[in-house]
Amino acid sequence: MTSARHRLNLAASIVGTGTSPLSARWPGTRWRRFAEWDHHLRNARTARRGVLDAVFVSDHPAHQRDTHRAPGHVLDPVALFAAIAGAVPDIGFVLTASTSYNAPYNLARRVASIDAISGGRTILNLVTSFNPDIAANFGDAPLPSREERYRRADEFVEVLTRLWDSWELGDEEPPPGPLWQAEPIDHHGEFFDVRGPLTVPVGPQGRPVIAQAGASGPGIDLAARHAEIVYAALLGKDAARRFRAGLDAGARQHGRSPADVRLVPGVNVVLGDTEAEARARHLAFQGMRSEDELVARWLTRLRAAGRTALPASVDPDRTLDPAWFEPDPTRDFPVGFQRALQELVADEGLTARELVRRHGDQVGHRLVVGTPRQVADALVDWWDDGAVDGWVVHLPLLPDDLGRFVDQVVPILQADGVYPRDYEESGATIRDRFGLPTPARAVPTPA
Amino acid sequence: MTSARHRLNLAASIVGTGTSPLSARWPGTRWRRFAEWDHHLRNARTARRGVLDAVFVSDHPAHQRDTHRAPGHVLDPVALFAAIAGAVPDIGFVLTASTSYNAPYNLARRVASIDAISGGRTILNLVTSFNPDIAANFGDAPLPSREERYRRADEFVEVLTRLWDSWELGDEEPPPGPLWQAEPIDHHGEFFDVRGPLTVPVGPQGRPVIAQAGASGPGIDLAARHAEIVYAALLGKDAARRFRAGLDAGARQHGRSPADVRLVPGVNVVLGDTEAEARARHLAFQGMRSEDELVARWLTRLRAAGRTALPASVDPDRTLDPAWFEPDPTRDFPVGFQRALQELVADEGLTARELVRRHGDQVGHRLVVGTPRQVADALVDWWDDGAVDGWVVHLPLLPDDLGRFVDQVVPILQADGVYPRDYEESGATIRDRFGLPTPARAVPTPA
Repeated sequence: MTSARHRLNLAASIVGTGTSPLSARWPGTRWRRFAEWDHHLRNARTARRGVLDAVFVSDHPAHQRDTHRAPGHVLDPVALFAAIAGAVPDIGFVLTASTSYNAPYNLARRVASIDAISGGRTILNLVTSFNPDIAANFGDAPLPSREERYRRADEFVEVLTRLWDSWELGDEEPPPGPLWQAEPIDHHGEFFDVRGPLTVPVGPQGRPVIAQAGASGPGIDLAARHAEIVYAALLGKDAARRFRAGLDAGARQHGRSPADVRLVPGVNVVLGDTEAEARARHLAFQGMRSEDELVARWLTRLRAAGRTALPASVDPDRTLDPAWFEPDPTRDFPVGFQRALQELVADEGLTARELVRRHGDQVGHRLVVGTPRQVADALVDWWDDGAVDGWVVHLPLLPDDLGRFVDQVVPILQADGVYPRDYEESGATIRDRFGLPTPARAVPTPA
Repeated sequence: MTSARHRLNLAASIVGTGTSPLSARWPGTRWRRFAEWDHHLRNARTARRGVLDAVFVSDHPAHQRDTHRAPGHVLDPVALFAAIAGAVPDIGFVLTASTSYNAPYNLARRVASIDAISGGRTILNLVTSFNPDIAANFGDAPLPSREERYRRADEFVEVLTRLWDSWELGDEEPPPGPLWQAEPIDHHGEFFDVRGPLTVPVGPQGRPVIAQAGASGPGIDLAARHAEIVYAALLGKDAARRFRAGLDAGARQHGRSPADVRLVPGVNVVLGDTEAEARARHLAFQGMRSEDELVARWLTRLRAAGRTALPASVDPDRTLDPAWFEPDPTRDFPVGFQRALQELVADEGLTARELVRRHGDQVGHRLVVGTPRQVADALVDWWDDGAVDGWVVHLPLLPDDLGRFVDQVVPILQADGVYPRDYEESGATIRDRFGLPTPARAVPTPA
């Protein structure tokens, strides 16, 4: 089945105080707001004002080591989004959780509960957690290998799916005999033994929607098998098209229709009333006085952190060598971000200066700096070409820049007819909003 | 330190559709409401209208076997109470969670997040989960022994406490250097290895308040060591006084002040405009036409389920033999409920008929059936005598009977001057409301 092109989808990241390393101390803001409910509530309400499909938080269940910038992962996403589900109508949310450090029964139940409470507004973003600091909070075993973590994630999703399907409640009228029938799943696998059924019945959108962001080999395979929404670091349109084609092929290989998978990469957006103001704001958010300074810092960082094989001296205005960006899964830098850099350099033959204009310094996503009109056009361009289905927008300063995006960019998209004007037009559930089908139940309803 | 007597505390259970086995199908109610957010939200709002200190849910992370009554434990308590924290101001909540089937880092983080979101309205009720159906959802290992579960619970609380204390955020103004200092807890014990620190800073009431309900030997010991609020099944005032004395002695043994422990047992309340109407409602909620029928069923059930050693034939109007109720920890019936029955029979020399009038058929707590005035007097009586600090009220039909309690009983307590008229008088946090001190931090703040 091929369907007509679905509309542009938009989510906004509400991690911490924004992507700028200076955002905690930014004048006129409360520095401790990363730990305050009012801050997160305000972000969710602002996103709702912009009819955004969802708000997003990544997660890292360990204390952040860098004490010079605001921590991003303070409140637990299960608690945060359950509270937002109770407090804010309409807005969806991308709840990130680790398949390595949760019991599938608990996570299935908590996420199904939030989907019931919110009326089907939940996207579960599964990650395998690659950081040893996280492992140390959950036992004395070292971090499992990437292969083992992805094998576990695969089995985890299977258990989730079957638990979510294990109990369908009947009609409006109570049946005369037993009030319900629910079937155990009796799962016995390499990592998990789970009897079931789940205590939460099938919810308003069938199952919660599953998202996945891994970009290593096993990550892409997991996405092709299970994910309905895929995040990715994609810096160029050509790379996006190739990634999309690979994802479509992978989905087909696993007997799925590519139409049932949405590609929604991250994008860093910096707004200004004029392009010059936007560029000045971008520099200020990076704590830099000039673009030269920014380029120099960018080069230093990619060398110092061992994130790339950049040589000691690079002329900012000479074309970069793609070989310097060869991805290496042993580096402490997500493979997807490494590959995205290499592909952009290879595809477009950029200098360091040009690359810095296309690439967020802090989060390795596409960077768009400009006026509301320029930003709107940049977002629509890739979608129009079929390279992506939408965006997760990352902003330098929260809540301020989310307000700018919602009040300045969204109205342009609405006026251009590429974005809904209200949630009635948008759809009630995540499946409605992203044009995703309700999957067939994994466990047949007993007769 | 001894303090002046603290005021009466009141919480209400909002488990499922109420304690009546007929509550799901009760005329005029939606039978599937146990799975519906609106039902739980309405209960929480009703409790807030009554200025109750908290709403309570027990938990059982496994599907209920009895399909003829509404399941009580559908939505996960972490998700449910985070949503209520977001949606309903003021109301506190008793969040039940298992120390056997959660990772301490995850639970510490989720509960601290909910306490931050709610402004200090969280009571964490720790249980060790004694049911094999729960164990089967979390692996292929059989249920650990009671001793092992309580050893694990003890270490669990230690880890929780240290995590909750591991990061205190500084002043209103951001410090000039590093934004924070947080200390690892480096816990290495029999069951857990947890490095920490927690991602959530010390919250509005210091630590969330810890409650405990175990009534077996190791359960009482755990309560004496760690619990700030203790639930218990107490059917008679004498038994309550003895339990209280034992708890006080246990607390002293562990270097704690008895003034820092609140005893808040459950009570089943059935209201009517007249005493006769209340008795008729009680029978109807039990599906019985007469008290004789109710007594006969009560005797059958306590025999059939192997919950007691009742002989095959018992005259409902002859004094019961306490030996028939000798507690046995191997029975599938909480030891606390067994002991409560025996103590009441031994203390007061009751017949089966008299016992049934004092004891809820479905939940093994004290039963009070009567007019609002009679119920208010019965609740105040034990508190006045210093036997208890308050009650967790269980009601036969939700949301209806919670509305009755809030609108008919609470105003009497307020008029009598034993219960606050609003949350300003009641206190903002659970510690304020229950007169509990903010405990000293387990980990000293680094200089």
